[in-house]
Amino acid sequence: MLKTSEASLDPENWQDFRQQGHRMLDDMLDYIENLRERPVWQPIPPAARAVFAAPLPKQSGDLREAHQTFMQDVLPYAIGNSHPGFMGWVHGGGNPVGMLAEMLSAGLNANLGGREQIPVEVERQLLRWVRELFDFPETATGLFVTGTSMANLISVLVARTAAQGCEVREQGLPDGHRLTAYTSVSAHVSVAQALDMAGIGTNALRKISLNVQFQMDVADLERKIAEDKVAGMTPFMIAATAGTVDVGAIDPLQAIADIAKREGIWFHVDGAFGALGMLAGDIAPRLSGIERADSIAFDFHKWGQVPYDAGFVLVRDGELHHNTFASPVAYLKRETRGMAAGSPWPCDFGPDLSRSFRALKTWFTLQVYGSEKLGSVISNTCALAQYLRQRVEDSHELELLAPVALNIVCFRYRSEEPDRVNADIVIALQESGIVAPSSTTINGHFAIRAAIVNHRTEIRDIDALIEATLLFGDKITNKINM
Amino acid sequence: MLKTSEASLDPENWQDFRQQGHRMLDDMLDYIENLRERPVWQPIPPAARAVFAAPLPKQSGDLREAHQTFMQDVLPYAIGNSHPGFMGWVHGGGNPVGMLAEMLSAGLNANLGGREQIPVEVERQLLRWVRELFDFPETATGLFVTGTSMANLISVLVARTAAQGCEVREQGLPDGHRLTAYTSVSAHVSVAQALDMAGIGTNALRKISLNVQFQMDVADLERKIAEDKVAGMTPFMIAATAGTVDVGAIDPLQAIADIAKREGIWFHVDGAFGALGMLAGDIAPRLSGIERADSIAFDFHKWGQVPYDAGFVLVRDGELHHNTFASPVAYLKRETRGMAAGSPWPCDFGPDLSRSFRALKTWFTLQVYGSEKLGSVISNTCALAQYLRQRVEDSHELELLAPVALNIVCFRYRSEEPDRVNADIVIALQESGIVAPSSTTINGHFAIRAAIVNHRTEIRDIDALIEATLLFGDKITNKINM
Repeated sequence: MLKTSEASLDPENWQDFRQQGHRMLDDMLDYIENLRERPVWQPIPPAARAVFAAPLPKQSGDLREAHQTFMQDVLPYAIGNSHPGFMGWVHGGGNPVGMLAEMLSAGLNANLGGREQIPVEVERQLLRWVRELFDFPETATGLFVTGTSMANLISVLVARTAAQGCEVREQGLPDGHRLTAYTSVSAHVSVAQALDMAGIGTNALRKISLNVQFQMDVADLERKIAEDKVAGMTPFMIAATAGTVDVGAIDPLQAIADIAKREGIWFHVDGAFGALGMLAGDIAPRLSGIERADSIAFDFHKWGQVPYDAGFVLVRDGELHHNTFASPVAYLKRETRGMAAGSPWPCDFGPDLSRSFRALKTWFTLQVYGSEKLGSVISNTCALAQYLRQRVEDSHELELLAPVALNIVCFRYRSEEPDRVNADIVIALQESGIVAPSSTTINGHFAIRAAIVNHRTEIRDIDALIEATLLFGDKITNKINM
Repeated sequence: MLKTSEASLDPENWQDFRQQGHRMLDDMLDYIENLRERPVWQPIPPAARAVFAAPLPKQSGDLREAHQTFMQDVLPYAIGNSHPGFMGWVHGGGNPVGMLAEMLSAGLNANLGGREQIPVEVERQLLRWVRELFDFPETATGLFVTGTSMANLISVLVARTAAQGCEVREQGLPDGHRLTAYTSVSAHVSVAQALDMAGIGTNALRKISLNVQFQMDVADLERKIAEDKVAGMTPFMIAATAGTVDVGAIDPLQAIADIAKREGIWFHVDGAFGALGMLAGDIAPRLSGIERADSIAFDFHKWGQVPYDAGFVLVRDGELHHNTFASPVAYLKRETRGMAAGSPWPCDFGPDLSRSFRALKTWFTLQVYGSEKLGSVISNTCALAQYLRQRVEDSHELELLAPVALNIVCFRYRSEEPDRVNADIVIALQESGIVAPSSTTINGHFAIRAAIVNHRTEIRDIDALIEATLLFGDKITNKINM
């Protein structure tokens, strides 16, 4: 009946397996070492797509063949965010130390939901480092999550508990609760989505207008809160942004903190990419006020260059955080000895019971590079953005569409039909494989958006962006024939 | 101003880095190859814990040293779920192919939120394989998530949309909505937590009693739905369980599907570990009815042996699933060409915009082992559980506390003080490092709970569990002196 010796998924021949593993590691290191020789991105040929149309494989296959498929049909058709020429969206570049750490993590196969194990202790060390970075008290709690979208959701739920008490967990949102929240019109969609998921609804989110720096307009915030209070609403959360997704603006955190304190409203900072500016000596002062937040959401996989995914949420009031998620059930019972010791566990602070060891790749990245080096990477992306801004301003054919606060530059090629022409330019740039910005809409105008996040990006990549933009712009507007 | 050549996180000396990478891979393969020689688990010595008390490192460190710390102070103090003797909680054992794939994934550093890239296509292939496995229509949608807790939340949110319309996203839960949901008293806590997070509240979750097989009592389900309807409530979701966390029972899915259909209620299956029983010829028939579900939540990292984390949610009504999460914002704008093509994207079906390439380790695992081999692993764990049941029943000193439906065996050592003695036995077993069950409460009694999930577990590990339980039981009750 029992065929246990055949059941294991471990290789029959470890030596063969080892050789193949080393080949895979070498191929991956070759890929990273020679990234610059490749196109940033290229369209997916139908033949590559067709490879992934096969039905569920019943029989065992060969690891070598699977790896070959990966090399031929996956690797060349990624989105390109590890490439120095990638400037589309705020994606980090990853790093080879983080890759090796993730291999260790996958081999260890730890579940970070809880229990008495050192991996949880490593995550706790990361929490202490994050507290230190944001000057939060020792009672603050935190947790790795997939990304800031999830961190924003957790923050909204803790703020909901602060406003409604723990009864909200059992009773649900009470009829006529009239909760309202506040964020700028430039906030990331995940803030609204968190209110949606939490049952509060996105209509409860007041969109505050922007000042000329594309920051939340504090006067408008005060006005909307006052109006809501007059109307009998219960303002419960302000979600400021440290680094908006469109232009990289930082909301006036000190002024918002003052208002939140005066009004007794939860002060959340969505610092998806911007919060880690705290690592950079020249950026940190501009985040002043973040240390007063009730909760902060951010990603190590953006400016922190940790491989995807590694989001984090930090909550000042650890007890409230715990009481928003902890649950007493038999199979999660805690002991003082054995494997069920070590309470409280990560699962007491968020929705996940199955959680990979995200802390390890983050620990290796911080341990090996150090916070100063990671900070210098961040400073450098901002310096490159200023260099790009200057090159745009120096060109008669280009114009800037938004101030450059951090590492994002929104600009366009001047034309009589700017929206159509610049949309065509972005596609041409992407399809060229030279450099890959994305696009957004600024004050109703189509913008080429270069988000410089990758530690591999250099001046020559900025120059290539300018030159290719001018070339494709001239071509699309028929100034030159190609 | 710009010091770009110093900014990159790539190694200065690739050859050195490569050598170190190969050493790390070898060490990890050694670890997996020789797992059986190690203790399953061991208490964390204070010295190891102290290693992780250091503050945030400012300066760069040595990768060799970081790796040495990992080898000395992390690897020996994991929870042990990759070890053949691990039987505590339903944790998968991981697999070496999945480990290599995760390394590729971390090196590629893809963000699976969306865009035109083959990694998204690989995830779509996995979705097609999952549809095939559960006999779902081509219009069904799905998505990788961390784990079933998140998959349950997504399912509750789609069911909420089904009941309340898409307006619930903007307007929030309407006053006096009176939604109610149904699950058995043995359901996983994440079902209740999903209702909590969604703003509905856990009081809205009716806990259905169990029959003698520890399955949801269908008569009680019908009664409670009828009572709620009389009371003016709106029953909107039944969450059945395929493989309960305590004893591994499968709710009567066909009967529940009939009731859900008749009453027009969303039929969800939490199949965290059990749903992948569909891969095993002898288990699949017992999941009959799962193919009628409106949504299924499960983990590839449990019975599927994919490294943590790799949960999945499958939703029959793809349009409803899309409309519960999709959002039109400028920086997520879709194009028909370039990098912003390929809509709809994974971020249109769940809360995450930053998502690692979970599909790759799952794809490699299925591609290399094949579904039949993975199915035989699942069958084997159930056969081992029956073997353990038989050994318990054959022993005068032991007694079974619940029927063995799948791969979980709850039993105890007979004693006049059974709760205290068996609690001590579990701690002693765990601290022995021989074999590591966990505990739970069955009908108010403390139970030793052996969850056999790992593909490496063999008859000798079951024998070791029995022998060590008897030995520690005799010792704790002073039948023998040690």
